Amino acid sequence: MGEPIPPPRACVAVLGGGQLGRMLGLAGIPMGLRFRFLDPVAGAPAGAVGDLVVGGLGDRAALDRVAEGAHVVTYEWEGVPADGARYLADRLPLFPSARSLAVSQDRVAEKRLCGDLGIATAPFAAVDDRAALHSALGTIGTPAILKTRSGGYDGKGQFRLDAPGDADAAWDALGPLGHLVLEARVAFTRELSVLACRGRDGEVAVYPVAANIHEGGILRVSRVPTVGRSSQAAAAAIARRLLEALDHVGVLCVELFETGDGSLVVNELAPRVHNSGHWTIEGAVTSQFENHLRAILGLPLGAPTLVMPNAMVNCIGALPDREAILGIAGAHLHDYDKSPRAERKVGHVTVLADDEATLDERLDRVEHVIRARPSHAAS
Amino acid sequence: MGEPIPPPRACVAVLGGGQLGRMLGLAGIPMGLRFRFLDPVAGAPAGAVGDLVVGGLGDRAALDRVAEGAHVVTYEWEGVPADGARYLADRLPLFPSARSLAVSQDRVAEKRLCGDLGIATAPFAAVDDRAALHSALGTIGTPAILKTRSGGYDGKGQFRLDAPGDADAAWDALGPLGHLVLEARVAFTRELSVLACRGRDGEVAVYPVAANIHEGGILRVSRVPTVGRSSQAAAAAIARRLLEALDHVGVLCVELFETGDGSLVVNELAPRVHNSGHWTIEGAVTSQFENHLRAILGLPLGAPTLVMPNAMVNCIGALPDREAILGIAGAHLHDYDKSPRAERKVGHVTVLADDEATLDERLDRVEHVIRARPSHAAS
Repeated sequence: MGEPIPPPRACVAVLGGGQLGRMLGLAGIPMGLRFRFLDPVAGAPAGAVGDLVVGGLGDRAALDRVAEGAHVVTYEWEGVPADGARYLADRLPLFPSARSLAVSQDRVAEKRLCGDLGIATAPFAAVDDRAALHSALGTIGTPAILKTRSGGYDGKGQFRLDAPGDADAAWDALGPLGHLVLEARVAFTRELSVLACRGRDGEVAVYPVAANIHEGGILRVSRVPTVGRSSQAAAAAIARRLLEALDHVGVLCVELFETGDGSLVVNELAPRVHNSGHWTIEGAVTSQFENHLRAILGLPLGAPTLVMPNAMVNCIGALPDREAILGIAGAHLHDYDKSPRAERKVGHVTVLADDEATLDERLDRVEHVIRARPSHAAS
Repeated sequence: MGEPIPPPRACVAVLGGGQLGRMLGLAGIPMGLRFRFLDPVAGAPAGAVGDLVVGGLGDRAALDRVAEGAHVVTYEWEGVPADGARYLADRLPLFPSARSLAVSQDRVAEKRLCGDLGIATAPFAAVDDRAALHSALGTIGTPAILKTRSGGYDGKGQFRLDAPGDADAAWDALGPLGHLVLEARVAFTRELSVLACRGRDGEVAVYPVAANIHEGGILRVSRVPTVGRSSQAAAAAIARRLLEALDHVGVLCVELFETGDGSLVVNELAPRVHNSGHWTIEGAVTSQFENHLRAILGLPLGAPTLVMPNAMVNCIGALPDREAILGIAGAHLHDYDKSPRAERKVGHVTVLADDEATLDERLDRVEHVIRARPSHAAS
C-alpha cells in the first residue's frame, strides 16, 4: 500500500513479453493503458500490443529502458531475476512484490510458508548434496520426486524416484543444477488450480476452481466448473491465507492436488496470471488479465463469476486447423503468433456451452481437431 | 464468392482508425491477425493495435500505403469515399462490398432497397430543390424530417419540420449541403437495432435485438435482451433479406423503429460494426468484432448468443470517474484514448447482471457516475 496510484492512462511495464504479456495488453488497452514489455526475444508475442524492449530480464540497461515513462511494473513470469525486479522496485511500484516473487521462486520457501499457515503440502526436505538426498529419502520414502528448488516449469528439472535405489541416478541428473528439494509424491485423484486476485486495499476476488489435465508435465486442459461448494470454499480459504500472508497484489495461482478423501494439498504457486486461468477471458465476467491490472493499478476488482461452463485446451507444438476449430459452436482460437516447435505453447482454444453435456461433446470435437495433424504447422 | 481466402495470419487493412478499428484489432490480435489502419488523424485510437497510416481516406497514395502487405480490406465507417474503396477493391478483396457501401451511403437507395424487398420504411421522397421539397411535403405531410442523403451521423444534417411553413427554413439550412431526402416522421415507441453478420459462404448469425436510447441524436444506451421471440424473428428476417440482397459479407447494423402495434420500420443501415453492438464484447458468446473478422476472412461464424442481460452506456464528451465505474459489479470501462470534446464518443461502459432487476439497479449506478462531473476530463 502507500505506493502512488497511477493516472488513468498509465503505462504498465511488464517483465516478459510472451503470451501472458500479450493477453495482459489485450485486457489493458480497452482500459486506456499503455504497455512496455521487456523480453530477450525480438518478435515476442506481446509486441503486438505495446512497445517491446529486447533485452535480458536481469540487464540493468534494458530494465532502465522498459521502465521509461512507466507508472507501475509487473511480470508475467516468476523466473524473472529477483535482483532485476528489486532494481526496478526501487524506482517504481512493483506488483506483485519482490517477496511474492522470491517465495514462488523457491519450492522450499513456498512449502514453508504453507506450513506456517497450516496449509497442507507434500512432505518435503531441502537437498543440497548426495548425502542429504539419502537422508531425506529415509524420512520421506518413495515414491518421491526430486526437483530443482527454482527455475523448473512444464515438468522440467524433475526426477521421479520409485525406490531408494534411484537416489544416485536422481542426484546425477539434477545435482549439477543447484539447490534441490525432495517431495513425497502425493496420491492425488485430480489436479486443480484456484486463481485469486488481491487489490492494493486488500479486496480479494476468487475464481471458480479449475480441473487441470497435464501431459508430459505440460498443462493441456483446464475446465470449469469442476468442484462443489465446500471444495470451492476450501480452495478459496487457502488462496486468501496465502494472498494475505504475502501481502500479495495481483493474481496468484495456487496449483492443488485433490486427494481421495477430497482434501486439497498445495503443489505450487505462481505469482502471476496463469495458463489455467485463460478460460476467464470468455468464461468469467472479468478475466484474470483485467483483474490483475485492476489490482496493480489500485482499482476495484471485477466479478470473477463464471458466465458459462467452459474448457480451455492448449495448442502445444503447432496450431490446429483454424477453420475446423472455429466451426465448433462456442469455440474461440487464441493464436500467440509464435512459430511452431515441439512442446511449445503456441495458442489455446476456449470452448463454451450452456450445459455440461454439450460442453463434453464440443470439447471432444476440439480435442479431435487439435490432435489431428495441423494444417499450417509452418505458418 | 471467388475472392481468395487469406492465410491464417493475415493482415487486415481497415479504412478508418477510430474506436471501431481499435475494437476490431483487439478482437483480431488473439486470432493471429495483423492490422493496418488508414485515418486522417495522427494518434487515432486504433494505433494501439496496429500500424496507423495517416492520410485521407480518398487519397490514393495513402490507400496504396495501407494496402501494403494486406490480404483483405474492410472499413469502420460508411463515410469512406466510394471511389477510394473501389480503388482498393481492384487489388484486394473488399468486404463489405462497394455495393453495400454505396447503398448505405444514400438514404434514398437504402429505402428503395427496403421497398423492393417488402421491408417497411418511413414514406420518403428525394428532394433536390426548393420546389421538390414543397411538392414532397404535399404528399408526405408533417411532422417530417429533411435529411442529407449521405454523410449525416449522430443527428447531424437533419432538420425537423412540424408544419408546411417550416419548408423554407429547412431548405435554407440543408439545401446547400447537396442531395436531400424528406422522410415522414415515424411515430415510434422505441428505437431498436439488430446486428447480423454474413459469412462469405452465406452463413448468417443474428444477434439479439438491442433497445437504443438516443439523446440529441447521439446513441447513449443500448440494452439486451429487449424483445420477445416474434419481434426477434421479424428483425432477423429483415436483416437476412437485406444481407442476401446486398450479397453482404461482414456485420450489418439495421436501425429500427418499433411502432405502437409492435411492427418494425427500418430507419437506416450501417454496413459495419456498430456502436449499438458494443455490448457483444462482454455480453455475447462471439463479439460483433470477432464475427466481422471471421466473415471477411472466409471463416465460420461464432455464436451470437447472449451470455447475460447487459447494457452499454456511451461516455460522451469525457470519461467518467474510473474508480467509481469499476466499483460497480459487472461493469467494464472501455477508454478509446481520445481527448475529451463536447458530443464526442470517448468511451463506453458495459454492465452485466444475472437478472433484469439487478441490471436495472447497476445501470442506474452507471448512469449516475457517467452523468456526474468527470474526474479527469483533461487526462
